[in-house]
Amino acid sequence: MKFVAEIDIMPLPELLDPQGKAVKSALQNLSITATDVRVGKHIRLELEANSREEAYQIAQTACQKLLANPIIESYSLTIHE
Amino acid sequence: MKFVAEIDIMPLPELLDPQGKAVKSALQNLSITATDVRVGKHIRLELEANSREEAYQIAQTACQKLLANPIIESYSLTIHE
Repeated sequence: MKFVAEIDIMPLPELLDPQGKAVKSALQNLSITATDVRVGKHIRLELEANSREEAYQIAQTACQKLLANPIIESYSLTIHE
Repeated sequence: MKFVAEIDIMPLPELLDPQGKAVKSALQNLSITATDVRVGKHIRLELEANSREEAYQIAQTACQKLLANPIIESYSLTIHE
């Protein structure tokens, strides 16, 4: 079965996020006020698995081994068909 | 009231995504098989608004005017408190 993993990888809250700061001030110039902006990555993995649990395991392994750097980033993932 | 807009900005499906291709082959080297990988941005905006609808409008304006380039990207956004 085909599953899709939607993965968000964000800089940890205690870290500075220069890209987010830049977006925040660019929004301000457009008269849009945001109290905080954080910029991270969104990764969409399409994968074959026998069950939702297996798909979740595969996506989690991908995050831990390659996609997210736990020193500076946290990840969250959801699986859908 | 404080709202949070979670925005995903992804390369349009008809476009090549070299970063996604690189991730796909790196996963393959770890024996993780993905049929497709797309890499985009995830932006988390915290903003003040009087209602969920107003927060949605602000976030949508931010996407249209600054965050997403409609020639190469599509965006999706969800609002929560």
